[in-house]
Amino acid sequence: MTRPSIFQKRITAVRQKLAAWEVDGVLISSPTNRRWLSGFTGSNGQLLITANRAIIATDYRYFTQAKRQAPDFTLFKHQRTLEETRNFLAEAGVQRVGIEAKHTTLEQMAELDEVENVAWVPLRQTLEPMRMIKTAVEIEAIQKACAITDAVMGQVPHLAQVGMTEAEVAWELEKAMRQAGAEAVAFDIIVSSGPNSPLPHHHPGSRRLQVGDPLIVDMGAQVDGYRSDVTRSFYLDKKASVPYFELYSLVLRAQTAVFQNAKPGMNLKEVDAIARGVFEQAGHGEHFGHGLGHGIGLDIHEDPFFSPRASEEDTVEVGMVVTIEPGCYLPSGVGIRLEDTALMMDEGLLPLTHCLKQPNIP
Amino acid sequence: MTRPSIFQKRITAVRQKLAAWEVDGVLISSPTNRRWLSGFTGSNGQLLITANRAIIATDYRYFTQAKRQAPDFTLFKHQRTLEETRNFLAEAGVQRVGIEAKHTTLEQMAELDEVENVAWVPLRQTLEPMRMIKTAVEIEAIQKACAITDAVMGQVPHLAQVGMTEAEVAWELEKAMRQAGAEAVAFDIIVSSGPNSPLPHHHPGSRRLQVGDPLIVDMGAQVDGYRSDVTRSFYLDKKASVPYFELYSLVLRAQTAVFQNAKPGMNLKEVDAIARGVFEQAGHGEHFGHGLGHGIGLDIHEDPFFSPRASEEDTVEVGMVVTIEPGCYLPSGVGIRLEDTALMMDEGLLPLTHCLKQPNIP
Repeated sequence: MTRPSIFQKRITAVRQKLAAWEVDGVLISSPTNRRWLSGFTGSNGQLLITANRAIIATDYRYFTQAKRQAPDFTLFKHQRTLEETRNFLAEAGVQRVGIEAKHTTLEQMAELDEVENVAWVPLRQTLEPMRMIKTAVEIEAIQKACAITDAVMGQVPHLAQVGMTEAEVAWELEKAMRQAGAEAVAFDIIVSSGPNSPLPHHHPGSRRLQVGDPLIVDMGAQVDGYRSDVTRSFYLDKKASVPYFELYSLVLRAQTAVFQNAKPGMNLKEVDAIARGVFEQAGHGEHFGHGLGHGIGLDIHEDPFFSPRASEEDTVEVGMVVTIEPGCYLPSGVGIRLEDTALMMDEGLLPLTHCLKQPNIP
Repeated sequence: MTRPSIFQKRITAVRQKLAAWEVDGVLISSPTNRRWLSGFTGSNGQLLITANRAIIATDYRYFTQAKRQAPDFTLFKHQRTLEETRNFLAEAGVQRVGIEAKHTTLEQMAELDEVENVAWVPLRQTLEPMRMIKTAVEIEAIQKACAITDAVMGQVPHLAQVGMTEAEVAWELEKAMRQAGAEAVAFDIIVSSGPNSPLPHHHPGSRRLQVGDPLIVDMGAQVDGYRSDVTRSFYLDKKASVPYFELYSLVLRAQTAVFQNAKPGMNLKEVDAIARGVFEQAGHGEHFGHGLGHGIGLDIHEDPFFSPRASEEDTVEVGMVVTIEPGCYLPSGVGIRLEDTALMMDEGLLPLTHCLKQPNIP
């Protein structure tokens, strides 16, 4: 007897959910759910799990790849015709099939509705809750992605020179991460300077760095599909200005409070409130306009989400990998954010990113 | 009186469709449709067009950017609550609203269904047919993206050295395109060598290039959001083997036939059949497993699609920018594909990419 693969274990976990979902099969189409459950990394394909079948349907371009990457699945060769979908479902012998409400479009639904004798059940969540708790192999990949980001973030004081554009800085950072072994950037790198610094999702542009600028760098690496996410903020001068340094200390205090006080079992709202309370007490509540952080893994943003709008029932648990990213953005044109990726352990949050928090670049 | 912006003209064109769609407003959420209609490039936002309103709803992160990029739209500040969606629609005074069937998920639909007094009308297509015909400004951006790809493809004989891995070659090409002015790659570069060459969507991996390999490089650049797409195939030796050279000539003949014979007004199937016929006559019909090509613009793959499965009514027209990419993939382990981006003119297809077709790298 061979040991079951991680994918066989995951297939078993999905089968155990079928009864609760009140279906006799589930169809998985979203790229990261598909990869997590099967190992298949192609851009097209659907997985069908029933009590005794595990099928991957994909097209001509991916037959060889699907066989190699997803040996726990039976390959069903597909050219995306309705006839084939009918055969595919008939072969699996299913009548009531769950589909991913978040990843199925109305157009796809209209096509599925043309298949006779199958009732489709949209599910708000399928694999997402299972994906929240990471295995050792997943954590190792995230750690590798974190180590690359740490090393490159440490080079920012050398790479980001006054006179360069934001886009040039972003490109230098991307090259450095790729050359350090990242298979891709985890998301488009954010480099926001001066009056752009209060825009949390600023796209790096043609603005040139100037002495006296606030600067935010938010970036991550991807390794084996898994991602890291780190943000550092800097003041571009020999010494940070006093108001900048005070705001920086506030953001750091908010982040430190979370690292000291977040514990497994805590409600997601409560975790968010730890940082939010620090900003509110300092009179900056309205300047922290986004959630405190998010789960990270195959997706850059995945469950859980720390937010004042989180559900009352959802908690942070041991084995989750999350980011903690408080920020403070003043309309006057100063933005500061600090973000680290961390693993929830029995004792609390263990940081997986460690690069220096240095408030200025001389 | 000022001249109407391109966005005002597009808004007018959308308004002229409302009656045919039998709606009094349309909600646009897909990123590239949103950008095409408004100029807004952020990652979150919805456009609502009615007979007399043009509204952009986006969240906190993008208020400043939306105002700057989309001056033809009124900004509605949104935190994605149902209450706000209600207000947003009430403010616009709409009762029957079109939504994009291809870009609206079942989860989003369930949320929309909670809004009282609005009937939602899923539309199979919204802006896609309008986007097919490119303006001069769009063609210019595509031309710039094509020029970058041409220049970098010309460097392949120097950059792709025997002993390098596919992933290393892909990264050298990406760096070269970015340094030549691409804001991004148009899609993940394909570098497939040896036995990987018959896999049309192979992801560049750790295989090292060897003397005697067939090699396919498929890549594009992005400029101002617009994309290019070019493929070249090579045999890695002083001279291509005779069977390789014969197959290469066949693919080139198929592509040339399309450039010589495709005319505006022709059915999409007919255009596909020009190339397919060449392969079939040579006994290689079954080795050309994908469609002949696709429209290109803000999306790498957009309407029209040249395919044996295209609708009888759809034709290629003057002003469309498309790719022509016949390929031949032998199960024995040899793949060859040639692809160029081209503009349909009154007289036929004008190539926008011109890099050399050289069948071997000595």
